[in-house]
Amino acid sequence: MRQLFHLPIDPACRKVRMLLSEKGLKCELRAEKIWERRDAFLRLNPAGEVPVLIEEDGTSIPGGQVITEYLEEVYPEPTLLGKNPIDRAEVRRVATWFDVKFQGEVTSNLVDEKIFKGFLGLGAPNASAIRAGHANIHYHLEYIGWLCDRRRWLAGDDVSLGDLAAAAQISAIDYLGDVPWSEHQGAKDWYARIKSRPSMRPILADFVSGKKPPPHYADLDF
Amino acid sequence: MRQLFHLPIDPACRKVRMLLSEKGLKCELRAEKIWERRDAFLRLNPAGEVPVLIEEDGTSIPGGQVITEYLEEVYPEPTLLGKNPIDRAEVRRVATWFDVKFQGEVTSNLVDEKIFKGFLGLGAPNASAIRAGHANIHYHLEYIGWLCDRRRWLAGDDVSLGDLAAAAQISAIDYLGDVPWSEHQGAKDWYARIKSRPSMRPILADFVSGKKPPPHYADLDF
Repeated sequence: MRQLFHLPIDPACRKVRMLLSEKGLKCELRAEKIWERRDAFLRLNPAGEVPVLIEEDGTSIPGGQVITEYLEEVYPEPTLLGKNPIDRAEVRRVATWFDVKFQGEVTSNLVDEKIFKGFLGLGAPNASAIRAGHANIHYHLEYIGWLCDRRRWLAGDDVSLGDLAAAAQISAIDYLGDVPWSEHQGAKDWYARIKSRPSMRPILADFVSGKKPPPHYADLDF
Repeated sequence: MRQLFHLPIDPACRKVRMLLSEKGLKCELRAEKIWERRDAFLRLNPAGEVPVLIEEDGTSIPGGQVITEYLEEVYPEPTLLGKNPIDRAEVRRVATWFDVKFQGEVTSNLVDEKIFKGFLGLGAPNASAIRAGHANIHYHLEYIGWLCDRRRWLAGDDVSLGDLAAAAQISAIDYLGDVPWSEHQGAKDWYARIKSRPSMRPILADFVSGKKPPPHYADLDF
């Protein structure tokens, strides 16, 4: 069967897991402790990062953005990118906003500090990074609300990779209990909608040892 | 005419400039001082970053990776991505290596510290970042040599976005005179080949005030 080397919580992996599910593609998950830098894994992806997709014929496709473009090309229906180049550019713009900008300004400061730093043996979380993550998330949640005032989903009237990329990031922060939902009703309404999709269910069942999510994490009525 | 908001030296912009040229697409360059955060520019790209492509009909396409995928879709010939999904995945993997990994490990530490930090008023370059950039570049130049021992170009037998992404990054470091060419013959041979392409010529004519490139920078026989 198709396999995905991944890490629970990691947003790039979550986005690919959701995309596979939205397209109805079955996939066996294999957790990869990337900090062990296994030789066999480095041969699959010299960058040493997850996610890496292995197709049934053994073809390996490494990296979140590479995998999403590949899956859209090989399994185009249903599309999560959109039907024409301009719509797809907008979907890619929104997805990149969350993959890169939200990841750098929020997720790196919260998830990497509170969870992955421990796995990597890099010491205690950095308090000023955590403060920055808490400060930066408001602007992104406001942007989600602003987009949803103008369209049904984040990148247009259909659910898209933009929503998957955003949900992948925000669900990782929500696992830590660090999303200030009560101050951002628009973002909360959007998250309630994406959270109820079947593709989110396995993600809401993720568990990282030593760190329990808050009670509302998997609750559709949070 | 088509326009590209850009910054000289910036690798994401250089990659798009080379791609436009390889596809024979004419484009007027407009330097955008992104640190001034002009309202009209933020309306084109809320992320406030270059590059942003404006098509003749006014359509705006923001972001290096979004623009490259858009240009491949709308102007597919000649392709710089490859002809089938597996080849394209390898091209995207190599391009992402340089767009993200090289950018984070080398370019941010050297170009951002030595050039962009001054524009942004963020103070003096950080000496430990510069040391890290100088240390990290060797591994990437070795990887270029390793790839070219196995294929004609970085991502296969044809020149591709992988080569453009790598040349965009390395030419920015070379502007600073910080590429240790004498220690990496394989990478040097590859760079001599990509440097002789007409799409590199305007990039080799870039100039940043207050910082002259070394004499070998635009020299095809360096």
